[in-house]
Amino acid sequence: MTNNLTSFLAERKKTIEKQLSVYTEKLDMPDSLKKSMLYSLEAGGKRLRPLIVLAVLNAYGKSEKDGIPVGCAVEMIHTYSLIHDDLPCMDDDDLRRGKPTNHKVFGEATAVLAGDGLLTESFKLITSHVSDEVSAEKRLRLVNELISAAGTEGMVGGQVADMEAENRQVTLEELESIHERKTAKLLGFCVIAGAILADAPEKDIETLRAFSSHIGIGFQIRDDILDLEGSEEKIGKRVGSDTTNDKSTYPSLLSLEGAKHKLDAHIKEAKRLIGGLSLQKDLLYELCDLIAARDH
Amino acid sequence: MTNNLTSFLAERKKTIEKQLSVYTEKLDMPDSLKKSMLYSLEAGGKRLRPLIVLAVLNAYGKSEKDGIPVGCAVEMIHTYSLIHDDLPCMDDDDLRRGKPTNHKVFGEATAVLAGDGLLTESFKLITSHVSDEVSAEKRLRLVNELISAAGTEGMVGGQVADMEAENRQVTLEELESIHERKTAKLLGFCVIAGAILADAPEKDIETLRAFSSHIGIGFQIRDDILDLEGSEEKIGKRVGSDTTNDKSTYPSLLSLEGAKHKLDAHIKEAKRLIGGLSLQKDLLYELCDLIAARDH
Repeated sequence: MTNNLTSFLAERKKTIEKQLSVYTEKLDMPDSLKKSMLYSLEAGGKRLRPLIVLAVLNAYGKSEKDGIPVGCAVEMIHTYSLIHDDLPCMDDDDLRRGKPTNHKVFGEATAVLAGDGLLTESFKLITSHVSDEVSAEKRLRLVNELISAAGTEGMVGGQVADMEAENRQVTLEELESIHERKTAKLLGFCVIAGAILADAPEKDIETLRAFSSHIGIGFQIRDDILDLEGSEEKIGKRVGSDTTNDKSTYPSLLSLEGAKHKLDAHIKEAKRLIGGLSLQKDLLYELCDLIAARDH
Repeated sequence: MTNNLTSFLAERKKTIEKQLSVYTEKLDMPDSLKKSMLYSLEAGGKRLRPLIVLAVLNAYGKSEKDGIPVGCAVEMIHTYSLIHDDLPCMDDDDLRRGKPTNHKVFGEATAVLAGDGLLTESFKLITSHVSDEVSAEKRLRLVNELISAAGTEGMVGGQVADMEAENRQVTLEELESIHERKTAKLLGFCVIAGAILADAPEKDIETLRAFSSHIGIGFQIRDDILDLEGSEEKIGKRVGSDTTNDKSTYPSLLSLEGAKHKLDAHIKEAKRLIGGLSLQKDLLYELCDLIAARDH
């Protein structure tokens, strides 16, 4: 990672983290619910999703201002999904980012409701917290894109498909389709949202949709590789769980080497796709490399 | 209930139920998730919330067309809240409307995700399924009102406050505040949404907000009375559970007679409030009576 991306990410990460807390603090709700939501929002993480929104705005040379509430909305959705995924009836995880999972601290009922609350409030960041410069039509488009990425046709549906694929062999095609919905679409929203806020031409948006699908699948392949090769300390949760759970993964279908080649191919294709667009590509290229090489 | 309201409700109920299925069928998601969502959406119920949206539009003499997707959005939110409330970690209920609860049929993980899916998709009915006659600004206002009613400042927060009030004596004031958030705000959204779609004057909307708070609290008092006096067969779930769970209710704080008087007072005040508005009040008056006298 070059200094360019390092300093870009470090500066914005603080802003995003501060705003996540500010938005949530302002809501009038029972203390225990607020504590539970803030616990997971403030648990750290790369904040990759909001940072992608800002990187795309930056690449178009536009103000990043309205990318902050939109990025925070995605981070809230991502956080709710982690809280629900960790529940005993789902993955039954005790640790997340090196800390006890939400339901371990606040109990299952509050964890379910904290997730519901984060999901519901996330949309308000788009409908109410972006500036008036973003037209009502554009806000509606952003909400629609976020629903497609996070709802039954995206993340929620992908989660169910992933559960159903457990304990059986799936084809590479099925695996891609699961991860397209479970992971890639929400990452894709971040790219598209940045482009919509930047008033990018529609043909750019379609190219960026293809780009984000490649980096999304690449992100998931890296996740599978980290589950085999990663450091428990850096990831903050147990590794090797895919093997224990007998889950089909890219390495299990393609071998570890095959998965690494596949990852490279997706990252290369992502970079090729944006090569023809009129925008500052350096940050986006570095982002692709970060996704391919991340260690947590 | 007069023939007027009976025939109004019966006709619209079919339309609402059909549309709930149509919207959900069209979404591209795993079969098991769709079955789980449809199971709860099609489990019956009074459909009171969407019918309130339509009744308010009718009272203003406006087309009910765009009230249908908006009403279906609230019904989806109501349905998701029932699925999550019934979970073992929440109320742990096995029966809902005389049928096994969602997690009893589809398992807990799918039930959590079906709730998440319904919540996420509900907003799309407002952002995408109302006609172009409803401006983007008005749609955003509807989404914001729905988030306030359903999120941490409304239903989700009320649910947490309700859990925290279990096993301890609460004051009447606390009880009203809990039910204002847990129940009344979402019913209130239906009234307000009807008025917004009808282009009602802002001062009407404020009066209707007060009106809906009274019918919402009235609705909850009737719920508490039914838990003591109701027929298990008609309600479709066990009665007497509030007493078993040692929950503070209107009858436990005010006596059964006192609760009935309180209910009457709320319904009378609701009717008084809309007395001065320029709209066709018959249906709304009958709706108040229905809420006060419902047997399920």
